[in-house]
Amino acid sequence: MHRPFLIPLSPPLHPLSLSLSLSLHFKHLQRMDQLKPSPANLCPLTPLTLLERAAVVNGDCPSIIYTATTTTTTYTWSQTHRRCLQLASSISSLVKRSQVVSVVAPNTPAMYELHFAVPMSGAILNNINTRLDAHNISIILRHSESKLIFVDHLSVSLTLQALSLFPPHLPKPLLILITDDEHRSTPIPAVDNNYFLDTYENLVRKGNPSFEWVRPASEWAPMVLNYTSGTTSSPKGVVHSHRGLYIVTLVSIIDWSVPKHCVYLWTLPMFHSNGWGFPWAMAAVGGTNICLRKFDAPKIYSSIRAHNVTHMCAAPVVLNMLVNHPISDQLPHPVHILTGGAPPPSSVLLRAESIGFLVCHGYGLTETGGVVVSCAWKPEWNKYPGTEKAKLKARQGVRTIGMTEVDVVDPDSGSPVKRNGSEIGEIVFKGGCVMLGYFKDPESTAKCLKKNGWFYTGDVGVMHPDGYLEIKDRSKDVIITGGENLSSVEVESVLYANPAVNEAAVVAKPDEFWGETPCAFVSLRSDVSPKPTEKEIMEYCRENLPHYMVPKTVVFKDELPKTSTGKIQKFVLREIAKEIRSSSSSSSSLRTTSRM
Amino acid sequence: MHRPFLIPLSPPLHPLSLSLSLSLHFKHLQRMDQLKPSPANLCPLTPLTLLERAAVVNGDCPSIIYTATTTTTTYTWSQTHRRCLQLASSISSLVKRSQVVSVVAPNTPAMYELHFAVPMSGAILNNINTRLDAHNISIILRHSESKLIFVDHLSVSLTLQALSLFPPHLPKPLLILITDDEHRSTPIPAVDNNYFLDTYENLVRKGNPSFEWVRPASEWAPMVLNYTSGTTSSPKGVVHSHRGLYIVTLVSIIDWSVPKHCVYLWTLPMFHSNGWGFPWAMAAVGGTNICLRKFDAPKIYSSIRAHNVTHMCAAPVVLNMLVNHPISDQLPHPVHILTGGAPPPSSVLLRAESIGFLVCHGYGLTETGGVVVSCAWKPEWNKYPGTEKAKLKARQGVRTIGMTEVDVVDPDSGSPVKRNGSEIGEIVFKGGCVMLGYFKDPESTAKCLKKNGWFYTGDVGVMHPDGYLEIKDRSKDVIITGGENLSSVEVESVLYANPAVNEAAVVAKPDEFWGETPCAFVSLRSDVSPKPTEKEIMEYCRENLPHYMVPKTVVFKDELPKTSTGKIQKFVLREIAKEIRSSSSSSSSLRTTSRM
Repeated sequence: MHRPFLIPLSPPLHPLSLSLSLSLHFKHLQRMDQLKPSPANLCPLTPLTLLERAAVVNGDCPSIIYTATTTTTTYTWSQTHRRCLQLASSISSLVKRSQVVSVVAPNTPAMYELHFAVPMSGAILNNINTRLDAHNISIILRHSESKLIFVDHLSVSLTLQALSLFPPHLPKPLLILITDDEHRSTPIPAVDNNYFLDTYENLVRKGNPSFEWVRPASEWAPMVLNYTSGTTSSPKGVVHSHRGLYIVTLVSIIDWSVPKHCVYLWTLPMFHSNGWGFPWAMAAVGGTNICLRKFDAPKIYSSIRAHNVTHMCAAPVVLNMLVNHPISDQLPHPVHILTGGAPPPSSVLLRAESIGFLVCHGYGLTETGGVVVSCAWKPEWNKYPGTEKAKLKARQGVRTIGMTEVDVVDPDSGSPVKRNGSEIGEIVFKGGCVMLGYFKDPESTAKCLKKNGWFYTGDVGVMHPDGYLEIKDRSKDVIITGGENLSSVEVESVLYANPAVNEAAVVAKPDEFWGETPCAFVSLRSDVSPKPTEKEIMEYCRENLPHYMVPKTVVFKDELPKTSTGKIQKFVLREIAKEIRSSSSSSSSLRTTSRM
Repeated sequence: MHRPFLIPLSPPLHPLSLSLSLSLHFKHLQRMDQLKPSPANLCPLTPLTLLERAAVVNGDCPSIIYTATTTTTTYTWSQTHRRCLQLASSISSLVKRSQVVSVVAPNTPAMYELHFAVPMSGAILNNINTRLDAHNISIILRHSESKLIFVDHLSVSLTLQALSLFPPHLPKPLLILITDDEHRSTPIPAVDNNYFLDTYENLVRKGNPSFEWVRPASEWAPMVLNYTSGTTSSPKGVVHSHRGLYIVTLVSIIDWSVPKHCVYLWTLPMFHSNGWGFPWAMAAVGGTNICLRKFDAPKIYSSIRAHNVTHMCAAPVVLNMLVNHPISDQLPHPVHILTGGAPPPSSVLLRAESIGFLVCHGYGLTETGGVVVSCAWKPEWNKYPGTEKAKLKARQGVRTIGMTEVDVVDPDSGSPVKRNGSEIGEIVFKGGCVMLGYFKDPESTAKCLKKNGWFYTGDVGVMHPDGYLEIKDRSKDVIITGGENLSSVEVESVLYANPAVNEAAVVAKPDEFWGETPCAFVSLRSDVSPKPTEKEIMEYCRENLPHYMVPKTVVFKDELPKTSTGKIQKFVLREIAKEIRSSSSSSSSLRTTSRM
């Protein structure tokens, strides 16, 4: 619009046209690009508004159903709304805005409510993986400067141990105890209850149900902080904005065609990237959350029947355990299951579908807040035989409608690889679900949020001719075992701390059951005697690492293969690891002939 | 986060915690609120990216099916993508960025493609209602400074007439002719083909399929311009941003639970607020668009059967015509129908549902880009009898998840009315779907996008105790007849131009068939003789207004009722209009006894 906005009068042919032209003429003229956002449309996008809407639209519908040992707790959406307001009110009296509130808990009703209540209080929600060890939890609590921790009764000793690792001069966060009726049967060991400021239910009771919840000043304001083991040994704190989580919530609903009033079973831990955004999505569709304290195949099958479960998410390893459990049987009705993290093996896919699961396969990272690539199914693929379909379904797929662009590029030049299903490159993203960055880590942030405008995932893949991408290798330093990401660098740093170890490298070894397991290649110092056994190396790791990070295989080598510049060639080790005969026991190990 | 970010070292209890603490210590520290949006997540939200994704995911699926007189045109999503790129390339060679491109066409494939191609060229899409008269179209073309018009062959003479009203010195827009095989059977009357620069299909053919489409520089950049008759006599140009339309698209899919690969029948004109956002929604779900040139009940029923239609939108008057048509019969499968604009009468709802339509009821304005309030159905309502259900369904409902807040307020004080279903107030909105403003009309923009942060709809309603809103009166100056909004002020200005008329006021008269019809109250000048009849007044209107705007009832009065400050009391006239016995003929009229 580059010329002045003069609207000449038309000849007075017509009374209406005259009056209109006059009214146009005397108005202040304005160019289209002068129209700016106004408060009426600038209101920040945030998934938190979904809760108050759910309370109006689905007030009497069940929001949460949770069966502990003897009792079943059921809430409606209006109760959940009220409880979250009360809780937010109490939290806001304990912490300042933008301070971090941590949660160490499995998929209980409290964990669900805190996904709304913490950010509604103006604080930042930080979920902590209950499978981490005290050292890692301690590091996360200190790095996040957490001011308040909600602790499930079964994670109390772990959390107290983490706090005992705080240096004496450092103030400790306040603790709130979450209990349920299982609490009575499992007394908290060695707990001085004076550690706890209060109980969760007291906080709910004391809170003001008319609390004016804290709307974000900007949709770009941080809302959650999720630590990921990432590709180096330091945990990285992924920060997502209200906007990013709103987009991922809406898009997850559309991508998986989640209907209103669905019944969602919580098999995916909410501490895994906020359960891929589904806590908020359930409020959007007025669904019912079936909470589940831990993975338990018989309980899952009985929940599916008892509550008419329609949807659930799970890592492939969980899907595997589920469909290969002795009690697995034809489902009473089809259940949609969204899996991701690693490509589901075709045997698992076929078995799952044969008993009535409708499997969708998606891909995302903690850094994308949820599933952002999914294997969108084409109607014409239905004609293929089962194994061919499983192969197609194992591909990660295409971007969801929340992503602007997805590509596989040469990591050096940044140019896209050939779309031939074989040329390998790094998977990159652009889109509204990409994180704001890593907390207090501008270096790592700059390494993946590059100046060319792309987010570099570190994952390696190919692009097929039909535009579907397939992962060939998760980031070289990440091993995914039983649905948990672990950092090979983290395990290596423990191995290097062993006085007998000269060099160490940890890679993923494919495993039918766990997806991958950590496999350590170690060269020992020649001056140490007696030399440790593989078992001793594993025991050493067990003392210094969370259980799931301990190498399931240890291989001694005189020297590790290296590049001309002296870097350990992990791809060579990965090939070797693949060839090692799988052993069902976790103590499998072997010595290569080259040793001595 | 108000204190400095120093992470003290922990005691060296543990090799991992030491190495981590060190790595934390030496990193540049950063506060959480220092994390800013980056190019990887700042990429503008726009519904245009949905098309290229559809071409990958649903490339071989049908995008459009259109049957003209003798031929059926079918495109796939990859063809539609390619055609839109070609078209965008051609358009970009004819107009500059941000210039306006108008379309005067019904729901043909071209109309659909232009919803992507025009904004992909960097231009602004302006749909013009084909039911307007030449004067109104001329005003819109001049006000929008349209540079290019795509004209359906059946709208050629109307458009040329509109251009003939341009003052001679004003440059005229370029014209592109859209034809189909009906073109051959209905030759364009009195057209000099030299008016046309080219045909639509030539533009497609000449375009470059590898065109790099113009991504918006900002998600707040304008994308469409839709004229609405609004509440005053000047048409107002509603401008929506890419962001607003992206949000309305996603939210419409979720709110109506639109599944993938649905089959959507185009009964709602796309020139009505871009068909409520569904052109873009169909790309998001890979649906099939069944295009339809005009409303025709037998054709609709045969399309539903032939194409397995699953979804359609329609004003209540269209729904009424459909279900009361002699050929209406039990549908072969359930068809979802979304209706809005006016509350559907319960008799229509009951009849529609009895033959297999699943009716949803929504509410929106051109200013909100689509449906932003909908009558979200509660499972517990299913137990009510049909008439009770119809009454509940006739309420407009609750905000969709794209709106941040919806309320009914006292227009003077701005405070919410009592939630009692009887206290009347103005409906107000806040949310991402609210327009940027009116083009070149800062006064009208400021009147509805108020400084208190709310968009004032001008519509009058009540809030029920359950949080559902119900419209009691559309904006006092808007009459909705047969799904078209008309401005009472516009009709009044024509009446006032009649030399015999002293005073005139036009109000809505409820009508079983049309929803509402315009009813004119007129006082005549005492010095005019002979006095005109009602029929003459209507004929005068017919000469000066589009047909649908002509009052169907004319009432002569000695004097119109007025307030103490001299304003005509329209609410009194509305009450009188309600009492007037409905007549099926459009020439109904009566003299009140008070007249001389």
